[in-house]
Amino acid sequence: MILTIERVGKYTIKFKNMPNIEGFAAVCGKKEGQGPFAKYFDKIFEDSKLGEDSFEKGESRLQTEAVSLAIKKSKIKPEDINIIFSGDLLNQCLSSTFGIKDFNIPFVGQFGACSTMAQVLSMASIMVASKAANRCVGVTSSHFCAAERQYRFPLEYGCQRFQTAQWTVTGSGAAVVATSGQGPFIQAVTFGKMVDLGVKDTTNMGAAMAPAAADTLKNFFEDTKTHPQDFDLILTGDLGVVGSKILKELLLKEKIILGDRHNDCGLMVFHREEQDVHSGGSGCGCSGLILCSYVFKSMRRKEMKNVLFMATGALMSPTSSQQGESIPSIAHLLWFKSD
Amino acid sequence: MILTIERVGKYTIKFKNMPNIEGFAAVCGKKEGQGPFAKYFDKIFEDSKLGEDSFEKGESRLQTEAVSLAIKKSKIKPEDINIIFSGDLLNQCLSSTFGIKDFNIPFVGQFGACSTMAQVLSMASIMVASKAANRCVGVTSSHFCAAERQYRFPLEYGCQRFQTAQWTVTGSGAAVVATSGQGPFIQAVTFGKMVDLGVKDTTNMGAAMAPAAADTLKNFFEDTKTHPQDFDLILTGDLGVVGSKILKELLLKEKIILGDRHNDCGLMVFHREEQDVHSGGSGCGCSGLILCSYVFKSMRRKEMKNVLFMATGALMSPTSSQQGESIPSIAHLLWFKSD
Repeated sequence: MILTIERVGKYTIKFKNMPNIEGFAAVCGKKEGQGPFAKYFDKIFEDSKLGEDSFEKGESRLQTEAVSLAIKKSKIKPEDINIIFSGDLLNQCLSSTFGIKDFNIPFVGQFGACSTMAQVLSMASIMVASKAANRCVGVTSSHFCAAERQYRFPLEYGCQRFQTAQWTVTGSGAAVVATSGQGPFIQAVTFGKMVDLGVKDTTNMGAAMAPAAADTLKNFFEDTKTHPQDFDLILTGDLGVVGSKILKELLLKEKIILGDRHNDCGLMVFHREEQDVHSGGSGCGCSGLILCSYVFKSMRRKEMKNVLFMATGALMSPTSSQQGESIPSIAHLLWFKSD
Repeated sequence: MILTIERVGKYTIKFKNMPNIEGFAAVCGKKEGQGPFAKYFDKIFEDSKLGEDSFEKGESRLQTEAVSLAIKKSKIKPEDINIIFSGDLLNQCLSSTFGIKDFNIPFVGQFGACSTMAQVLSMASIMVASKAANRCVGVTSSHFCAAERQYRFPLEYGCQRFQTAQWTVTGSGAAVVATSGQGPFIQAVTFGKMVDLGVKDTTNMGAAMAPAAADTLKNFFEDTKTHPQDFDLILTGDLGVVGSKILKELLLKEKIILGDRHNDCGLMVFHREEQDVHSGGSGCGCSGLILCSYVFKSMRRKEMKNVLFMATGALMSPTSSQQGESIPSIAHLLWFKSD
């Protein structure tokens, strides 16, 4: 089978023979394991350090576990994987490095903040479709305790959280992308441009990310000549309450009405009120967790046939925040089909 | 023209019709502008902040300048570029984000520490060869002052430098990869695996990175059935004095003799003794600077026909260093041909 690739419109890459999600896995922490989608997750860890001696090493273990499970569920071995694409939120992609290094598989580190799950699967799909690889893994993770102390405040400080703030998910999602199988399949990829409207508030990332999401989604619909009603689910990564509202408002101005088709991993992952997470979940583990569990499982059961998955990233760093810089954002999109 | 891709051996991706380096540019700081290869660089900035108010923003400007020049020298416009692949050494790829955001081009952030120049060009090549993109840019940067204060000590502290330490290059290299042109051309890519022999010394990155370089180079020779003598130059990224020596020793055990064909961007970029840089230059700007100036210019003049470029990365973060972790390393390789 020859897999071929074509560019459609200005920004979209379409696959003539679609790469396949061969296997996938989602693992998470205790709080996520008490959320409404817990029954779809493969493993829930009660210990936030997963037996390691730091939160960061705990996060690395999440990636190790997710990749191991995704490989196992694909009924293959690590040596069958040609390349792993991985990224996370920590400085210099620390948890990816330490989570992946012992697999002994070629590794290409990715950074797209919370957009990373879409980015790693996009790269994996292109590699497989182009025959540059037979099989790739895409994986991301995030960890509440590691992210908070790096980007905001150490938890010990007991800082009060803003109502616009989101709760970084402790979790990891991994998927094996291969040439053939039972799906879901990847039909197209749209890479996003950075959008920077000057938002500087690190406790309101939804507002920073929504314009990037609107831009990528608009580009995708234009490129592919599709409409929201062509999809069973239009799933954003982690815009939360604030960002989801802004996204819909921005798209309305472009005469694009998402309606009930839209959902957001950040709104799904927790019982928002009861679990006290304010604007919702966030982190690249958030979209990774929901995609590599509920979404892919539902698609395999053909409960959903066409899904747009668009993870959004706030491209900030502790250094840029401390220097008073704005938060440029980005959103990458994949179109999944169940057959 | 249909560009096709095939996997060769276990780790190598070979292009049947080779992607082309359409244009390239190299910009740097004052110290690099006093080095032996200064005449090949496009722009030398005397001000280490490039007129910005922080070293980090100065580094971002290096990327902006390098990409602008590479696009200009390719005689194209920013809108002709489908995707920019960029990465740097700072936390959360800060200088890439701020250096690239205003180009309004789809952006895919990469992290491979000092291996990033090879990583971005590998990704760009595969995208172009697979027709997922018509034109891509690969760019990296590093900045001495920004890197020192993030990874080691702020300069104001006046810390004495170890003899094994390398001097992070203030510079950026950018290249436009397209389907056709006058070359150099990319014949093959080999992605590296992470290698971790337990080195923890952040002032001796050459020792940490050399085993990864040896592994990737050995894999490439095995996959392609080539030998060191088939190449005019085997150029490592920034192993410096210590790492270059270890690389040769490790390869000798495998009966691979690099000899005079080997050189290292870290050994080339400065007058090592006179400029007091101890073990040599480093940083992803180091290999970017030498590759996108001297190497590509020499290849266009056909002074070199076959060049292996292998950038090496020490996958450390301030957090992992402070937590006493080792430094896993990686090396990605490209095979350039002049025709």
